[in-house]
Amino acid sequence: MSMGSVSAPLFLGVKMIKIGIYGASGYTGQELVRLLIQHPEAKITAITSRRYKGTPLADLYPVFTGLTDLAFIDASPEDVAKDADVIFLALPHGVSMEAVPKFLASGKKVIDLSADFRLNDAGTYEKWYGKHTASQVLSEAVYGIPELFREKIGQSSFVANPGCYPTSIILGLAPVLKNGCIDVKSIIVDSKSGVSGAGREPAVGSLFCEVSDGFKAYKVGGQHRHTPEIEQGLSHFAGQEVTMTFTPHLIPASRGILSTIYATLTKDTGARDLEKMYREFYAGEPFVRIYKTGAFPNISSVKGSNFCDIGMTVDKRTNRLIVVSAIDNLIKGASGQAIQNMNLMCGLEEAAGLKIMPVFP
Amino acid sequence: MSMGSVSAPLFLGVKMIKIGIYGASGYTGQELVRLLIQHPEAKITAITSRRYKGTPLADLYPVFTGLTDLAFIDASPEDVAKDADVIFLALPHGVSMEAVPKFLASGKKVIDLSADFRLNDAGTYEKWYGKHTASQVLSEAVYGIPELFREKIGQSSFVANPGCYPTSIILGLAPVLKNGCIDVKSIIVDSKSGVSGAGREPAVGSLFCEVSDGFKAYKVGGQHRHTPEIEQGLSHFAGQEVTMTFTPHLIPASRGILSTIYATLTKDTGARDLEKMYREFYAGEPFVRIYKTGAFPNISSVKGSNFCDIGMTVDKRTNRLIVVSAIDNLIKGASGQAIQNMNLMCGLEEAAGLKIMPVFP
Amino acid sequence: MSMGSVSAPLFLGVKMIKIGIYGASGYTGQELVRLLIQHPEAKITAITSRRYKGTPLADLYPVFTGLTDLAFIDASPEDVAKDADVIFLALPHGVSMEAVPKFLASGKKVIDLSADFRLNDAGTYEKWYGKHTASQVLSEAVYGIPELFREKIGQSSFVANPGCYPTSIILGLAPVLKNGCIDVKSIIVDSKSGVSGAGREPAVGSLFCEVSDGFKAYKVGGQHRHTPEIEQGLSHFAGQEVTMTFTPHLIPASRGILSTIYATLTKDTGARDLEKMYREFYAGEPFVRIYKTGAFPNISSVKGSNFCDIGMTVDKRTNRLIVVSAIDNLIKGASGQAIQNMNLMCGLEEAAGLKIMPVFP
Amino acid sequence: MSMGSVSAPLFLGVKMIKIGIYGASGYTGQELVRLLIQHPEAKITAITSRRYKGTPLADLYPVFTGLTDLAFIDASPEDVAKDADVIFLALPHGVSMEAVPKFLASGKKVIDLSADFRLNDAGTYEKWYGKHTASQVLSEAVYGIPELFREKIGQSSFVANPGCYPTSIILGLAPVLKNGCIDVKSIIVDSKSGVSGAGREPAVGSLFCEVSDGFKAYKVGGQHRHTPEIEQGLSHFAGQEVTMTFTPHLIPASRGILSTIYATLTKDTGARDLEKMYREFYAGEPFVRIYKTGAFPNISSVKGSNFCDIGMTVDKRTNRLIVVSAIDNLIKGASGQAIQNMNLMCGLEEAAGLKIMPVFP
Repeated sequence: MSMGSVSAPLFLGVKMIKIGIYGASGYTGQELVRLLIQHPEAKITAITSRRYKGTPLADLYPVFTGLTDLAFIDASPEDVAKDADVIFLALPHGVSMEAVPKFLASGKKVIDLSADFRLNDAGTYEKWYGKHTASQVLSEAVYGIPELFREKIGQSSFVANPGCYPTSIILGLAPVLKNGCIDVKSIIVDSKSGVSGAGREPAVGSLFCEVSDGFKAYKVGGQHRHTPEIEQGLSHFAGQEVTMTFTPHLIPASRGILSTIYATLTKDTGARDLEKMYREFYAGEPFVRIYKTGAFPNISSVKGSNFCDIGMTVDKRTNRLIVVSAIDNLIKGASGQAIQNMNLMCGLEEAAGLKIMPVFP
Repeated sequence: MSMGSVSAPLFLGVKMIKIGIYGASGYTGQELVRLLIQHPEAKITAITSRRYKGTPLADLYPVFTGLTDLAFIDASPEDVAKDADVIFLALPHGVSMEAVPKFLASGKKVIDLSADFRLNDAGTYEKWYGKHTASQVLSEAVYGIPELFREKIGQSSFVANPGCYPTSIILGLAPVLKNGCIDVKSIIVDSKSGVSGAGREPAVGSLFCEVSDGFKAYKVGGQHRHTPEIEQGLSHFAGQEVTMTFTPHLIPASRGILSTIYATLTKDTGARDLEKMYREFYAGEPFVRIYKTGAFPNISSVKGSNFCDIGMTVDKRTNRLIVVSAIDNLIKGASGQAIQNMNLMCGLEEAAGLKIMPVFP
Repeated sequence: MSMGSVSAPLFLGVKMIKIGIYGASGYTGQELVRLLIQHPEAKITAITSRRYKGTPLADLYPVFTGLTDLAFIDASPEDVAKDADVIFLALPHGVSMEAVPKFLASGKKVIDLSADFRLNDAGTYEKWYGKHTASQVLSEAVYGIPELFREKIGQSSFVANPGCYPTSIILGLAPVLKNGCIDVKSIIVDSKSGVSGAGREPAVGSLFCEVSDGFKAYKVGGQHRHTPEIEQGLSHFAGQEVTMTFTPHLIPASRGILSTIYATLTKDTGARDLEKMYREFYAGEPFVRIYKTGAFPNISSVKGSNFCDIGMTVDKRTNRLIVVSAIDNLIKGASGQAIQNMNLMCGLEEAAGLKIMPVFP
Repeated sequence: MSMGSVSAPLFLGVKMIKIGIYGASGYTGQELVRLLIQHPEAKITAITSRRYKGTPLADLYPVFTGLTDLAFIDASPEDVAKDADVIFLALPHGVSMEAVPKFLASGKKVIDLSADFRLNDAGTYEKWYGKHTASQVLSEAVYGIPELFREKIGQSSFVANPGCYPTSIILGLAPVLKNGCIDVKSIIVDSKSGVSGAGREPAVGSLFCEVSDGFKAYKVGGQHRHTPEIEQGLSHFAGQEVTMTFTPHLIPASRGILSTIYATLTKDTGARDLEKMYREFYAGEPFVRIYKTGAFPNISSVKGSNFCDIGMTVDKRTNRLIVVSAIDNLIKGASGQAIQNMNLMCGLEEAAGLKIMPVFP
């Protein structure tokens, strides 16, 4: 197999949907490429990066050696849109909002993986993130958790792809909120994330020596920017304003988010009732797996896949519901969910390109 | 340096207190040896193990190569007590209670690292653990968290050494409970432990491949046996019965416990007030380190040391207190605290043998 | 999605080839299941395990939750063969040889992942492993490295699937041996393996606490049982008897083997000449990736995939060739290669079911 | 215990030797502080860092919380020397050589941890590192492996502290070279290092996600700058010029170096002969531990300590010697050895401040 060309076309085929990835050099961007290369219908036409302009993807990520000729280009939204049916933006918040309106103007389908269009309310965004310069298109964005907003996503051409923590938490609580089983004032979420969530920017806090053998909480006390996004999602299903406590932690592992969620039950509900409720709520979902009463997920059981695994029980001594949900933060928490959204937006099979087993051990 | 004898006596000296370690082949047992070898006053006279009878410690744990001649013996409590001033028992619960009365009868000082004598009430023990066959000596046991029960420990010759989770949690909550700042019905504890807490018995769940890249909750819903011990400790400081929710998790790291503790504040207390309260409560303590407001501990900052690090804040949005405490489960959570207790019981400097910096990275 | 049945048939399809996996409870066995579930043509009809008889696979490996109904059965080779076209045996050496002749007698295609039929010479086997009780079928076995013995494999109905270390080493040296570039007496192989190579049997040496933060050599000095298999493979390409030094090491990672191979060059060959030689030797191979001069593989670039990545250079100061090869020990080093062999034996596309990107990070 | 002052003086005492650490913000620098805080005779008077001027050490490394008031200053060598008896320089190569002559001019004892004064020959330095601007003081430097050059070190006031790889390799081969047992042309060294060797500078290659689950060779083919230092040390004991092959690898662990060393035996020497030879060569050494024939070290057995563990055997099939040596790269490979040198230079007990057990698990 020669370098720089695909002489052994493992992943080629007749692929009809053309994809541009705007800002593709980070972990989320490369994960999009990785998944799309295996997608039966998608063909990547451009990956952009200002910093790595001209660099082959395989030079930055040796995992792609021999599998693709793609190299980063530095191009305007207009130019990228010319040869793409769908645009993924994997840019930092604040940067994404500059490009999104241009892509929308091109008439192409847009999936933004930043936080810029996840909050319905520009005021809330500005309180947590900073100035919003594209609030005029905010109302066009559909929040992209397919299990919860499938129909809207299918009709939309602009999806705000959810954050990793929010995905794990909103999927974990939607059934009990919808069914009015918990005191919405009592919600406490203790989440734990792998290090890839911090991205590939070199920073002392992400170094192997700083993370290995360690475990810590960060942004303690309602400081994390995902807080309003989580509350917006929970409020939707609660039918009332939800304010909760959210504490993220850092796991010495690359991938995975595990959220342990506590809430006081308002009804006399047993663990098996809850299991039944969750199974019904998520009946037929290809990517949500409900655990048997007494079993709980591990991030190693979803690693490398688009699954969201959920287990739940009742602490009878305190009458609290405890829900544990697990996702791969780079897949169901980012790039996999983005592709699931793309499939819905393009009328493809929802699971196309995502029929991938978790990798264990 | 020749094998099997200490030709380069790095750790020798005139040591006066003779120590027997009953059940020394597990991680907690070897950690006792490791720390006591460095202790200026302690001299180990026997380490026992039925299974490894005759085996040099250095064969089981190569880390001791060239540093000690100690080999495991299989001996009765009576025989071990003959040549020991202090006995540490590092046996599983249920087994320890058979030997402890014999050691007590010998008149020697006894520190039991099992759960057998931590609960004041035999009935509670039997509910969570099983039959208690030595309840006649239960009332003699002093619960050994030196920062909280120093005086009693100093006067006692029988200490029940606390569990790892309870140590991290009781130290984390004692100040606010004592000061009546929180609603005792609102306590939720989300703890995370390194794998060494599971011991050295081969089990699928402790294999590298099962733990690495993973993170999970276990014993969810008030199932963990440390629950009554935690509640007993918290109730002591609350001055009333405390029932709480406790969820342990498994960190892919060998050492360390981090407990994230949530409770609703009953008074209008700010983060700086709390910091001041904690500093006053633990003033002069050699092994409790209170973090500045806004800073929180990491298990990697206590690894290899006897410290308990505590940070706290207020989530103003929900009026909840959040406390984060970190210990090395094998040291402050087991063997280090046991030696701290020994020092108090023997009238030595409390920190003797424990003036050890954490190891980072 | 309900438990215990596949209501969301992510991985179903019209699959024609029926597979029995004999001894499926270890890491290699579950990896076969994992890969075959994603295979477009294969349908697993039986997985066996004496110990876990009756247990659903998903109970032993939660990663399969909701994805398969398969449960372990305890059945004779004859019974398993009845409903299978291809049999994979993932049993320990010594055990496999009892079942293989029965499967061969059934006329079905057999792929044995044990060491029992890899050595041509029963005498050599007995020197390294112990009594061989099925030497009468030894000559029927074809050694299954497809890149090197494709034609024979395609014509065979009995393949001895290679060991993980041998695969990485034989693929790494075949080109220079074939081209007569090195002194065959000078070969030194320093290999490093992830922990999954030790299997899922609980053993102290495989515990997280024993492996994490560690790195060691084992079976030093020509002790490892893969030695004769490696030498048999190298001798084949050298056209003469090869004896080499082989030292395996244990990496604190679950998956991956990296072999660093040293040999003295007998001709004046430059690094670029070697790169060219390797590219030509492996031209068109879907699963061998040759690195550009100056670049070398990392096990993280092949994790989760069937690739063998190879980089090489010349140490001009000592006139030595250095080859570095990397595989995922559970895939190209075991189950993936077994499926590649199956594809050849069944006349399927060689890469069927193996078009899987590595997972990074 | 209050922050920012040592109210619980765990590590205080009457300490007479004043220490300045020039360039103390990296892992090696903080390790010096960590060890010296526990040293019975040493008192740190200054730690410098241009970048972190004014920052308390405990802010950069929370592990020091509550244990020291030290903060970084930006000061000239002259100013630091005023209040110091011994100077440690923990600066990058090329930078150290600017400051060393000034410290030497002050008449204080100097231990340089950079590579700048390890090579006797300025020409060799310039070939591998770049311009040498302080070659006038090169001849004053003594190469600081105490086990091999104890006397010279004790008489010197300027020690070039060895590199981590060279320490593990030179200690591993000195006995057989001195005894003329091996063919010096046949030496191949395959070394593996933990990530802390790369320092604390943020770089993509040192990120957790890039290192975890990975293993790779780097600087393959005689490219690593430690090569001439290793060869200089080996040549000294061989009594002739040694050229060898050296390949470093990266272990997914923070601390530790394991070197696997191969050489052809020139005499008929058995494994037990070798063990005896090594034991005699290192008789009475406090920090070298020779393993019994058939046993080999693991980096986890030296982690956190100043030990160098060595095991060796003969591969009878190829008549090769195989030596495996293990050190903690930050201690015996850097800061611990530097303190051992200081002790010798100051006439203190050689092991003072280094009587520290390895930390396992």
